[in-house]
Parts: sequence; structure tokens; C-alpha cells
Amino acid sequence: MITVVKIGGNVVDNPEALSRFVDDFAAMEGPKILVHGGGKEATRLSARLDIPTTMIEGRRVTTRETLDVVTMVYAGLINKRIVSALQSRGCNAIGLSGADGNIIPATRRPATPIDYGFVGDIDAAKINTDFLATLLNSGIVPVFCAIMHDGAGSLLNCNADSVASAVAVAASRIAPARLIFCFEKDGVLTDVDNPDSLIESVTRESYSILKNDGVVNKGMIPKIDNAFAAISQGVSSVTIKHSDNLLNDRGTTITE
Amino acid sequence: MITVVKIGGNVVDNPEALSRFVDDFAAMEGPKILVHGGGKEATRLSARLDIPTTMIEGRRVTTRETLDVVTMVYAGLINKRIVSALQSRGCNAIGLSGADGNIIPATRRPATPIDYGFVGDIDAAKINTDFLATLLNSGIVPVFCAIMHDGAGSLLNCNADSVASAVAVAASRIAPARLIFCFEKDGVLTDVDNPDSLIESVTRESYSILKNDGVVNKGMIPKIDNAFAAISQGVSSVTIKHSDNLLNDRGTTITE
Repeated sequence: MITVVKIGGNVVDNPEALSRFVDDFAAMEGPKILVHGGGKEATRLSARLDIPTTMIEGRRVTTRETLDVVTMVYAGLINKRIVSALQSRGCNAIGLSGADGNIIPATRRPATPIDYGFVGDIDAAKINTDFLATLLNSGIVPVFCAIMHDGAGSLLNCNADSVASAVAVAASRIAPARLIFCFEKDGVLTDVDNPDSLIESVTRESYSILKNDGVVNKGMIPKIDNAFAAISQGVSSVTIKHSDNLLNDRGTTITE
Repeated sequence: MITVVKIGGNVVDNPEALSRFVDDFAAMEGPKILVHGGGKEATRLSARLDIPTTMIEGRRVTTRETLDVVTMVYAGLINKRIVSALQSRGCNAIGLSGADGNIIPATRRPATPIDYGFVGDIDAAKINTDFLATLLNSGIVPVFCAIMHDGAGSLLNCNADSVASAVAVAASRIAPARLIFCFEKDGVLTDVDNPDSLIESVTRESYSILKNDGVVNKGMIPKIDNAFAAISQGVSSVTIKHSDNLLNDRGTTITE
């Protein structure tokens, strides 16, 4: 079983939470892959450089200048920090953007109806599973940021949840694969401020009810959508949980 | 024959020169490795962020803040730009810091006599040649920045010429290896402003005369020292040349 873990930006932004997560991830048995989000570092750096940050529907509009910032922060600072932290725990991590080894090609999103700039979408079918398998078979742990490339010389900013989902689908062509979304909450909650309101299992049927009732919030919808997309494309299981609970069972399991 | 090419910061800083170099490097036959310098982008970014840049004997004093800047610029922006440019020319490049796959461990330089901060030195004997060979045998082209790690969770800023020399020495344990330093001059010149003053060959004997006479300038001395270090540790040949001359014979050859 290959485990693909995604950690969200709020974990990346919190040194103590990140350190605890890195301990647990390094200790996890079996072949594994990490996908990390960006956190607020890119927004802070943009502000210090007087580069405006524009978000539309939760997604960063990526101008040429913003692309440079997110490439620096995600592919440079955060990726290498996580890799060196994992190495210090004896986990042989390798940091990768999609351009590295052409492992994840992306397609720039059309400029209509909304021009997000250098933003890309990826297709799990195009992920270079041969190279991914070579790394995993060598006991190496890929650590992906969400910076991909179009194969024509341009880097592209992608959504880390979507990257995690696509990587898990690609991994499932190598061996059975499971996907774990780790973030700063215990899972899908009926009351976002109350960890006791955890929903332990979400099915397609219960999901449509939860959405209709407005119980799942906006930030959770893309995660659950990505979870169902992964399951329908061959991923064995998807769970959404707190980054402190990587090695235990607490969390929300998404099933058909 | 494995070819290790180092490109200097002035080439990295010049988009047209870099694009011509990338064309030539992508076209070069056989297994190959690229090591890139940093250029002035880190200094410019530091200035925009009001982080002071202190250089002692040509080497950047690397505080915690400066380490973040060089990690962003070298391991993020420049490395991924070069990798995506090479990919667009059909060259299957992978960008690496020393932390990635623990491929190049480094040792933090002692704080005396000069405290350079997070600056490291590397030992060719400790380079992970198994992983390097795995990449080369898969037709993958490693592209190294000069950010290494200490194995204990800290990244370290290293000298790119020294990295190139050590990587060439390590490569020579896999197969015969040659090392090419590419920069913005035609090679070792008796008159730095006159390309016609090229010295086509430098031996240890002629080098000591050139140094005594003050003919080779300060910037060139570490390059030539690294060249001799590489040759004495098994690298077949070292040349110093203009980045536009990668595929032709013009340049300075360093021999015992």
C-alpha cells in the first residue's frame, strides 16, 4: 500500500505542528509520498515586496511576479525545509516540482471565464508513474510542492489538494494507494469550532445532504470533491484528519 | 564520459545568455550534470526585503534570514526556471539541493576565524553516488543548486564552484568524468577585458607563475584551485570557458 499524505498550509505555517507532523510522517511504515500546500508565507512575502495578492474563489491569481514568489516559497523555502527536516529523521525525502523529471506535467488554465494567470490543472493520467515507481522502489520519499510546468518552459501554480488527489490516482497504478488529507481540524465537522462534532464517515449520499444543509463549509468542499475523484479513479481509501492524528484512526473517512 | 558543467551567476542573471546556454546544454550528448551559481537575484531580493548583505572575501555571510533568501532564490526560482527551460528542450532535468535524496551532505563551517553563518563545505567522498548513478542511468539530468544540508535539519549555503568540483569527483567514481566551468569570459585571460588574451592551457607550474605575476585575478583563483582539486581526485579534464562556447573547443584547459 502506498500512502499519499497532503498537509495543508496552516500546518506548514506552524513550526511546532509541522515538526510533530514530520516526526509522525517519518515514522510511518511503507512507501509514501508527501504533498504540501503553501501556507501564508507567499502572501506575506508578496506583501513585503509590494506585490498585490488577488484571490478569486479561494484561488491565487498568479501573475508573472506572483509566479516567481510562489516558486521561491513553495518549491524553494517550504519544500527544502520539509525535505531537510525529514532527512534529519532518517526519512530519505526528495523535493520535487512537477518540472523535475517531468514528473507532473500540467496544462495552463484557459483565460476565460476567469484569467488566473500562470495557474495550471493536472491530469493524473499524464503523471510519470515510471519515475515515481523508480523513486519509491529505491526507498525514496517524494515530497511535492504544487508548482508544476507546461513542458514548454513555463512553471504553473496548481492547487495542492488536486495535486495530492492526482498523485494518489497515479500511485494506485503502481500499487494499491490510500490518500490522507492532513490539516488543522479533526476532519469534517458539523460545527467547525467543535472537534467533538466529527463526522467519521462521509458517503456520496451523506455528502449531498451535508452540502444541501450547509454543514460542510467552503474550504472543505474542494477537499471532499478531490477525495471522491480519487476514489472513483482507483484510490483505495481517503481520510481527512488533523495533522497530529496521522498515525491514529481519528478522522473522517470518505467512501462511495 | 560524464560531463559536469557549472554555470556562473552572471550567466544565470542574463536571460538571453542563459537561454543560449540551455539550448547548447540540452543538445550535449551523453550523461551530464549541471551545477548553477546564484547570480545577483539573492542580493536584489535581500535589498527589497531590507536584509543586509555582508560579503567577506567574496563569500556571503549567511544569517538565518539570508539562508531563507538564498534557499528561495537558488533552490526555488533559479533551479526550477532552469529545469523547466531544459524540459522544454527535451532534456529530462531534475532540480536538486543536497538535501534531496541526501545526495550531498555538507558540514557547517566552524565559526572561527570567521563566522559565515549557515555556510557549509562538502566532501566529494560523502556524495551519494548510488543515487547519482541511478538518475544518470535513467537518462535523467541532475541540476544542482549550491544549497546543501547538514543531515540534522539545517540547510547550508555552499560555494557553487566547490560543489561542481566535488560532484565531478564523485561522478568520476561512476565513469570517467570531465568538468567544464562556464561563465561570461572566454577562459583564463591575461587581460580580463581582451578575449584575444586567452591562455589555452594552464598547468600547475604556469599557474604559480601567473599567480605570482598577478595575471590571474581574484575571481579566477578559486575556480582554478577547484579545477586542480578535481583533477588530483580523478576528474579526467577541466576546462574554463564562455557559456556560449560549451559545444566548441575555445577555452582554457587545466592540466597537471
